[in-house]
Amino acid sequence: MTIRVAIAGARGKMGQEAVHTVMKNEEMELVSVLDYKEIGKTLADTNLFPSSYDAPVYTELETLHKETKPDVLVDLTSPEAVYERTKKALELNIRPVVGTTGFSDEELDELTQYAKDRKIGCIIAPNFAVGAVLMMKFAEQAAKYLPDVEIIEMHHDQKLDAPSGTAMKTAHLISDQRPVHEQGHVREKETLKGARGANYDGMRIHSVRLPGLVAHQQVLLGGEGQLLTIRHDSFNRGSFMSGVVLSIKTVMETEELIYGLEHIIG
Amino acid sequence: MTIRVAIAGARGKMGQEAVHTVMKNEEMELVSVLDYKEIGKTLADTNLFPSSYDAPVYTELETLHKETKPDVLVDLTSPEAVYERTKKALELNIRPVVGTTGFSDEELDELTQYAKDRKIGCIIAPNFAVGAVLMMKFAEQAAKYLPDVEIIEMHHDQKLDAPSGTAMKTAHLISDQRPVHEQGHVREKETLKGARGANYDGMRIHSVRLPGLVAHQQVLLGGEGQLLTIRHDSFNRGSFMSGVVLSIKTVMETEELIYGLEHIIG
Amino acid sequence: MTIRVAIAGARGKMGQEAVHTVMKNEEMELVSVLDYKEIGKTLADTNLFPSSYDAPVYTELETLHKETKPDVLVDLTSPEAVYERTKKALELNIRPVVGTTGFSDEELDELTQYAKDRKIGCIIAPNFAVGAVLMMKFAEQAAKYLPDVEIIEMHHDQKLDAPSGTAMKTAHLISDQRPVHEQGHVREKETLKGARGANYDGMRIHSVRLPGLVAHQQVLLGGEGQLLTIRHDSFNRGSFMSGVVLSIKTVMETEELIYGLEHIIG
Amino acid sequence: MTIRVAIAGARGKMGQEAVHTVMKNEEMELVSVLDYKEIGKTLADTNLFPSSYDAPVYTELETLHKETKPDVLVDLTSPEAVYERTKKALELNIRPVVGTTGFSDEELDELTQYAKDRKIGCIIAPNFAVGAVLMMKFAEQAAKYLPDVEIIEMHHDQKLDAPSGTAMKTAHLISDQRPVHEQGHVREKETLKGARGANYDGMRIHSVRLPGLVAHQQVLLGGEGQLLTIRHDSFNRGSFMSGVVLSIKTVMETEELIYGLEHIIG
Repeated sequence: MTIRVAIAGARGKMGQEAVHTVMKNEEMELVSVLDYKEIGKTLADTNLFPSSYDAPVYTELETLHKETKPDVLVDLTSPEAVYERTKKALELNIRPVVGTTGFSDEELDELTQYAKDRKIGCIIAPNFAVGAVLMMKFAEQAAKYLPDVEIIEMHHDQKLDAPSGTAMKTAHLISDQRPVHEQGHVREKETLKGARGANYDGMRIHSVRLPGLVAHQQVLLGGEGQLLTIRHDSFNRGSFMSGVVLSIKTVMETEELIYGLEHIIG
Repeated sequence: MTIRVAIAGARGKMGQEAVHTVMKNEEMELVSVLDYKEIGKTLADTNLFPSSYDAPVYTELETLHKETKPDVLVDLTSPEAVYERTKKALELNIRPVVGTTGFSDEELDELTQYAKDRKIGCIIAPNFAVGAVLMMKFAEQAAKYLPDVEIIEMHHDQKLDAPSGTAMKTAHLISDQRPVHEQGHVREKETLKGARGANYDGMRIHSVRLPGLVAHQQVLLGGEGQLLTIRHDSFNRGSFMSGVVLSIKTVMETEELIYGLEHIIG
Repeated sequence: MTIRVAIAGARGKMGQEAVHTVMKNEEMELVSVLDYKEIGKTLADTNLFPSSYDAPVYTELETLHKETKPDVLVDLTSPEAVYERTKKALELNIRPVVGTTGFSDEELDELTQYAKDRKIGCIIAPNFAVGAVLMMKFAEQAAKYLPDVEIIEMHHDQKLDAPSGTAMKTAHLISDQRPVHEQGHVREKETLKGARGANYDGMRIHSVRLPGLVAHQQVLLGGEGQLLTIRHDSFNRGSFMSGVVLSIKTVMETEELIYGLEHIIG
Repeated sequence: MTIRVAIAGARGKMGQEAVHTVMKNEEMELVSVLDYKEIGKTLADTNLFPSSYDAPVYTELETLHKETKPDVLVDLTSPEAVYERTKKALELNIRPVVGTTGFSDEELDELTQYAKDRKIGCIIAPNFAVGAVLMMKFAEQAAKYLPDVEIIEMHHDQKLDAPSGTAMKTAHLISDQRPVHEQGHVREKETLKGARGANYDGMRIHSVRLPGLVAHQQVLLGGEGQLLTIRHDSFNRGSFMSGVVLSIKTVMETEELIYGLEHIIG
């Protein structure tokens, strides 16, 4: 059966991708769009989409629900008001797939309980890139057996922070699995400061910044006579779409709130 | 407690590595060595090891058992006679860790039953390279979510067969997980025959052979806007030793026969 | 001194990139645009560029020349009529930088002689990607010393032909430098047809096609105990722009026709 | 014509490799070996080589020369006494191929003049790995066109210094070619110290240390929309042998002293 999908945040960068993704997917139908302001009668009126994209636009979730009966609400807006909207969706029996962070622990607990009581699926995923989530999971698993690890993350040179959030999260996950220990030779010496990278519980993280690069990370795990490398390359925003599709399908089959794609995958 | 280890096949290439590995491991003790012929009183007499390597050499498993009481027998000999020796070890209450293939299905079934009845651990592993086993497991898992896969395996140019056994096994494992489908464009055309590699259930396998290379494999999984790469480099025979160590420890804690490192790992 | 640049083909994909590139370059000024039809008074009128892009649009090269006096004409149109336009530019003392193929040998000879006689620079480059040209040059040089070579090219799965044009050209260049010889073991056997890739004078070429990939190539050169890898990743059309900039600067300093970026670089 | 080769330092690690290399090369003949002490009558007497390796061993270069008339002396000893031996070889009209450092500038100048006067070839090469020398040359050339560069060098975890000597030399060569400039965003921030690696004239160098690794380096050059990567993997000491062979051949054809393989190659 076709899954009836509504999208909130359809005009944003992620939202536009999601619109195209749902439109092209044969198992789904884009039944409506939620916006915080008046932007026209249909998606096509925004001039961001072809004229054949005729999903109606609503500014009120109740009306949207009443008139278009979506199974799922994909929410790709900013963190503000996302909690209220998610709760309201659950009340209306619409299953939320949320791509923004911005929930407090209390709010998450409350939504989790609410979904459980009502036996309704809800997925909240700060990172929809399936490949990146797999990379992190595999690195975490592998570090049990190959506990010497270094991370090289590579991004375009307009990125402000180093290491990247994904590298930090990967290191954090790995550090739960491997015995903390310093790596390299005990008498190792940097003749040029910083050569050995950042030290996270003994693991080393290296941040490369070059024009041309997009978003890439490799986790290197060394053992006697061998090297295991797990690498993810994200070439464009489309990399998030497989996670959106997976979440839409999964939210229809679960009866609770799932936080993080890593609990769906694997 | 220290694990008392005996090794069969200590003079072979793998065997020599295993001797060094056990000697250096603080949780283990090399108590004796089994050889099919008289090679001297101790390991050192073979001139293959330092004079401090004084583990006694036996040609009979019973005598070896009586005089040195090993917990584990690491068997790195050739396939011949390995079944009888493994069975004998189990009877003597020595836990076998076997690195050779060469068991018939009937023999495996019998040993499995025997280990189960006696509640004694036994590990048989055709491939001890932990990193390679992890690569295969991860590729298999990832293909569920990123079902477009190509394998590039790279070996020295003295290798006779292409694709490698590991590549074939990886493809086999993946094909159990992903929907069979042809990859590439339907109207794709090879202007030079063979460019698109070997076709395994729609997946493509590419075999690179160059002087200098050792044994390397990467599995590439592509999805919209992203690429996940899982790569294993084996630089020398030492790559098998982490699997030997892991098996010695695990065989002490299990009460049945385990076939394949993949059932220990992950 | 600022180089005065005119662009033909500004509305095409490459052309749009070139417009942005010249606009952002402090050593250049975009003085005008040539189009084959009426598209408005300025670039901004096309709705493809910001309103600040006010370079005037002409349909006749003579008028364009008379009114905007460009030093260089960057031609990113299709092959048709490019020969006449290039010749006309030379006559008007405008230095052409041409990114399309589509010249016959006779036409090239004639333009070469003409540029030489008039001591005026002219650059024709079928491939503006500086990195790809460097990769080919380096592979060619390295093959003299490491004559065992395999090429792995990787593209998105909508590409129809395999191997890619760049892979074929790379192999062709290398084959001029290395002694022709079969690679791999003489008794090498494909247990799965195509595994060893396409055979180009003994070199092997492997074509990977996966969704998510853009345009990537690596040349592997193996020797005893070592591997040299030269890899180029093209992530988007911007990769051609460094070649356009380099050509614009170089055409101002040369007094002859140069065919192919490889004769500027290195 | 077969080149008659003598080797000094044949019992060392590099020396043993060189012996095998010359023995297997059809264009060369190993006519004798120089040692600083009595080690037997022939190479085979050292027990380091097969009994068929019957090149005679000498402790005096004059006697060796008189009785075996070598064309080339390959010197793979330690730095001590290498200057005197090289000078003596030139006097005896033997062409030296020297793999050790340890010459003062004055000594090099004197040998250079001496070789020039006598019109006799002499090659001194601190690094015989052809692939590594090519990597450095290519990186240097490419940096003219793609001036944003980062270096990742990867070695086994027993290495004491970071960055490696090769990485430092590569950075030094590149810095001669590219305009000095800081890379990355001006407001870039390390949230974990050292993440961005060592800073060499604005270029970043990252040193990875993991068990299992041997000696690997990649130079990454980024430009708009593209990345050029030049990588060298050294898997074992055999990687130096192509440079030894190349030097033996080249020293027969030159009439002067050449310092550094980079002046032979390319």
